[in-house]
Amino acid sequence: MPDDFERMWTDLAPVGRSATSGGYFRQPFASAERELAAWFVEQCAARGLRVESDDFGNVVGWWDVGDGPAVLTGSHLDSVLDGGAYDGPLGVVAALAAVDLMRSRGVVPNRPVGVSVFVEEEGSRFGLACLGSRLATGATSWESARELRDRDGVPLGDVVGGGSSTLLDGVGTFVELHVEQGRDLVDRGAAIGVASEIWPHGRYRFDFTGSANHAGTTRMEDRQDPMLTYAMTALAANKQARVAGQRATFGRIAVEPNGTNAVPSRVTAWLDARCSTDDALASLVDEITRQGSERAGRDGTSLSVTAESVSGSVAFSPALAADVAADHEGGDWPVIPTQAGHDAGILSAAGIPTAMLFVRNPTGISHSPLEEASVADCLVGVSALADTLDRLAR
Amino acid sequence: MPDDFERMWTDLAPVGRSATSGGYFRQPFASAERELAAWFVEQCAARGLRVESDDFGNVVGWWDVGDGPAVLTGSHLDSVLDGGAYDGPLGVVAALAAVDLMRSRGVVPNRPVGVSVFVEEEGSRFGLACLGSRLATGATSWESARELRDRDGVPLGDVVGGGSSTLLDGVGTFVELHVEQGRDLVDRGAAIGVASEIWPHGRYRFDFTGSANHAGTTRMEDRQDPMLTYAMTALAANKQARVAGQRATFGRIAVEPNGTNAVPSRVTAWLDARCSTDDALASLVDEITRQGSERAGRDGTSLSVTAESVSGSVAFSPALAADVAADHEGGDWPVIPTQAGHDAGILSAAGIPTAMLFVRNPTGISHSPLEEASVADCLVGVSALADTLDRLAR
Repeated sequence: MPDDFERMWTDLAPVGRSATSGGYFRQPFASAERELAAWFVEQCAARGLRVESDDFGNVVGWWDVGDGPAVLTGSHLDSVLDGGAYDGPLGVVAALAAVDLMRSRGVVPNRPVGVSVFVEEEGSRFGLACLGSRLATGATSWESARELRDRDGVPLGDVVGGGSSTLLDGVGTFVELHVEQGRDLVDRGAAIGVASEIWPHGRYRFDFTGSANHAGTTRMEDRQDPMLTYAMTALAANKQARVAGQRATFGRIAVEPNGTNAVPSRVTAWLDARCSTDDALASLVDEITRQGSERAGRDGTSLSVTAESVSGSVAFSPALAADVAADHEGGDWPVIPTQAGHDAGILSAAGIPTAMLFVRNPTGISHSPLEEASVADCLVGVSALADTLDRLAR
Repeated sequence: MPDDFERMWTDLAPVGRSATSGGYFRQPFASAERELAAWFVEQCAARGLRVESDDFGNVVGWWDVGDGPAVLTGSHLDSVLDGGAYDGPLGVVAALAAVDLMRSRGVVPNRPVGVSVFVEEEGSRFGLACLGSRLATGATSWESARELRDRDGVPLGDVVGGGSSTLLDGVGTFVELHVEQGRDLVDRGAAIGVASEIWPHGRYRFDFTGSANHAGTTRMEDRQDPMLTYAMTALAANKQARVAGQRATFGRIAVEPNGTNAVPSRVTAWLDARCSTDDALASLVDEITRQGSERAGRDGTSLSVTAESVSGSVAFSPALAADVAADHEGGDWPVIPTQAGHDAGILSAAGIPTAMLFVRNPTGISHSPLEEASVADCLVGVSALADTLDRLAR
């Protein structure tokens, strides 16, 4: 008998967990995440699911029943640096448990059902979010992706073979279950929600260049200090996003030479920006760039901005969302937008009808050890996903 | 015959040099700096200087002539991260060349003359500047220093044995030759200058603590983002220093988790501050702390400030400086202050009469690959140091 939800969850809990923060470090193609990937293959085998992998590290466990277009469900196993337990793994573990629940209920789908794991969803190692699903759908070519490098300079092409993927060839519908990354469901008093859309979002590298110099002997007026240009730009980004009701974050920075007694020669910082419309996103980034460049002129530094990845707005199929959300015991599930990117957005943009289920997060916090979901809500999520697969695979 | 100045300089040039920036990475007790340390012992041996080391890694090559209190001269071989060629090594190489010049002139000193190398002058690895001279003079105890850790968490006690030092026991005078780290000598049209004083200076660790969260889904008004508090504090430090005619720099920063799509949980940044008086330094740091704390209150974050090292004002012996500077062919050498810390300041504070010679730096830039000194000026420096040792060792 395969492990049940709680047993699976308990088994995964220690893998890649920091004893200091309680957060998770599950970087793609590194030890903790690879341990989870191996665990996933074992769990598929225990359920008699046929395992199919592609050349990018994406994996599907197939329940080969019925015929016609398959229904795929799953999420990812990687985490951001010091992330929470739920973002990603909850959708994978819930998918395996949902298969078990359907079987225990005697449900035999009329279509094949697959449980999927896409690699590097967070983009925390190679800088491009949803990398696995982008490669599987062809949204990103292997030729361009293979040269992406991690912080140690290792190219993606050195850690995975690359080539092609046929995982999605027979897929008619995709469903991703995910912990909510805000407090909408808490506010609505609902354990489960359905996604309406994903806000457009992008990552932009801001390179501020100045001149290294001695921090003691260099007069303030003789400096070209890129840290100052950066600091003003970070404050401007926050202010612009607040004023416009959008989101802008500088959460990652690299300084050269990063010595206490040296004025830096260079500050590189990454802007994460998300807006309700594509136009609003472009305007926000333009305005932040304009203010940063103006300050650079005053600081004697320079600023160049590179868009590392930009994802346009994704509207999930309204009909599918309505179908998934309607007619449940206790009423319809709320349909809500999300500002977070997901593999579901990539598959939807590739033309695969896609839905997302969210499980309530009492803290509303994500990408943090404080991310949370109750066992009760997770089990409601498993049941909701089983119901949804049952509907979609009829 | 020992190597001459230019040969020694050419031999050192490639050691620890970055092919990318042209800057130097000579971290204490790591390969490049250890190579220089071994080279120094060889050069002492080639000159028949008796090598004496202490338990902290400091070394002196003794020219055992005359008697009475010794005259010591030297500098350091470590560099900041991506530093220049001259800061440190110039004073060591010039000291060896000055011994050669005195001998070639037939000068026999009436007192022992030593060439010294103190370890970790920059504090770029263990965070405490002038670590070697502080330990040798007893300004810092081994009990407190042994637990200092580098960025990888390695304690100082793991890389050097520790214990005691008798290197300075018979020393009556110390002279350090150093590249100038500003443009005073350029402005005065002089190749050589003498130090009057070192400004008080300190390093302060600013810990900004907030809450990690998802950069996309967290509303701007729900964040406790320590990056914003840091950014405002960095701008405030710059403004306060400019207004007060002092120096304040945030050149080093560490962010957790430092991910593009996560609001940081913590930003740690180091303030380097230098002022013309001890009171001005205390006021400057207090004002920066006050403004940072006020902003933290508005950001929902917190700030704690730790003084990692503070060095009070050092006035070098005015009589000694005047003696060293006076009566030279072409006129007196200018006597100028410096905002940079030096081992000479530690020895002076320990009661050893101390002087510093500066060699002109055409760029005025230091702690950078752009640091510069002409060969002609370096040779003037060697001659000036030989003259000074001759005067002091009579």
